[in-house]
Amino acid sequence: MSTELMLRLEIDALNADYAAALDERRFDDWPEFFVDDAKYTVQARENYDRKLPLALIALESKGMMKDRVYGITQTIYHGPYYTRHVVGPARITAGEGERIRAEANYAVFRTRPGDASEVYNVGRYVDEIVRTGGGLKFAHRLCVYDSEMVLNSLIYPV
Amino acid sequence: MSTELMLRLEIDALNADYAAALDERRFDDWPEFFVDDAKYTVQARENYDRKLPLALIALESKGMMKDRVYGITQTIYHGPYYTRHVVGPARITAGEGERIRAEANYAVFRTRPGDASEVYNVGRYVDEIVRTGGGLKFAHRLCVYDSEMVLNSLIYPV
Amino acid sequence: MSTELMLRLEIDALNADYAAALDERRFDDWPEFFVDDAKYTVQARENYDRKLPLALIALESKGMMKDRVYGITQTIYHGPYYTRHVVGPARITAGEGERIRAEANYAVFRTRPGDASEVYNVGRYVDEIVRTGGGLKFAHRLCVYDSEMVLNSLIYPV
Repeated sequence: MSTELMLRLEIDALNADYAAALDERRFDDWPEFFVDDAKYTVQARENYDRKLPLALIALESKGMMKDRVYGITQTIYHGPYYTRHVVGPARITAGEGERIRAEANYAVFRTRPGDASEVYNVGRYVDEIVRTGGGLKFAHRLCVYDSEMVLNSLIYPV
Repeated sequence: MSTELMLRLEIDALNADYAAALDERRFDDWPEFFVDDAKYTVQARENYDRKLPLALIALESKGMMKDRVYGITQTIYHGPYYTRHVVGPARITAGEGERIRAEANYAVFRTRPGDASEVYNVGRYVDEIVRTGGGLKFAHRLCVYDSEMVLNSLIYPV
Repeated sequence: MSTELMLRLEIDALNADYAAALDERRFDDWPEFFVDDAKYTVQARENYDRKLPLALIALESKGMMKDRVYGITQTIYHGPYYTRHVVGPARITAGEGERIRAEANYAVFRTRPGDASEVYNVGRYVDEIVRTGGGLKFAHRLCVYDSEMVLNSLIYPV
């Protein structure tokens, strides 16, 4: 089996684990998918395509991610909702040495209490992944979303 | 290749075959994805998370599944609709001996005659899978759905 | 690892690359996923199931695909939109000699400028794939869509 297909499969597994942590609301597990100095960015496609810097969320370390989790679970006043991530198969776009670049399309569905599920945020993950002693981790997860109108606020990570 | 990644791939194939049987309306094939004394449960996440027993559908043997298929195809009066399942990559959550526990996120889209497609039911499969002479089969497929409001009735299996 | 699982993984990779080309609007790359005399068909499930010939799009060579790309990018007057494909795991339905038959469920989400994302077209790919010197290519990609009402026009390939 080719090394690239094998790696794809490992990244699919990483994406599935990541989605499960968020969808099961195990928010404390979320920063653990990243290395310490990792970045997490959620950016509109419009800005990404034009190489403009503005992003909806831009976290620059695991510490900032933990702070975000604290905000989500303890301080941000928001209407609760469930998320459900359905992620397509990953693509390896580059892999030089230790750092793998990969992408995958995602759809996040939102369900508010008492309501039907709806399309919430769709886009692609543009990832930099490194292999560590604890398995594959994100050095940068950039979520480039198509959705030009974000329904209410985006509270939980994508 | 690690045994776990290999098993994941087998479960992805099982999930794809299962989805295809339902979406192509080959309902008679549906019970054959299960062992004889298997369970099939469709439960709201709200109840699942609180460990409450109430479920929308709770079938406790392959016989009950066949009965359900008879109902769907012969007796239940309902507005017809197409389903389309898009299933994310599977995760192995435990595998002791013969019995594998796995999960996968799903989105089911519904299309009613003359209408646009819409999000119908999203959630995750929580599965117990056994290896048989006829390949992997479900000992229990539990569909935990986020969607708090079910659009009309849920007639076909998820 | 079984040859069939290996092949499934290769087709998942092909589907991911195909989706990425369309979603990133690299339309000129799109015909290159096909062999020269390939067909590309987009057909309503209603007609497909009844074996009726009418299709929304029926292109019978790579030349026609290039013409379509020219139309999309240069001549067809249309409201722009983003697409996002989320594709489920592929199934091998037959593989005699050189020609592989495979299927996969897809959901395409559309985002119009300034708007939320919505379900646009869901269905399944029914593919004939051949192995060439340049990797797997489509001899025929048939997109059978459930969506009975197509939102506005379908401009970009599915």
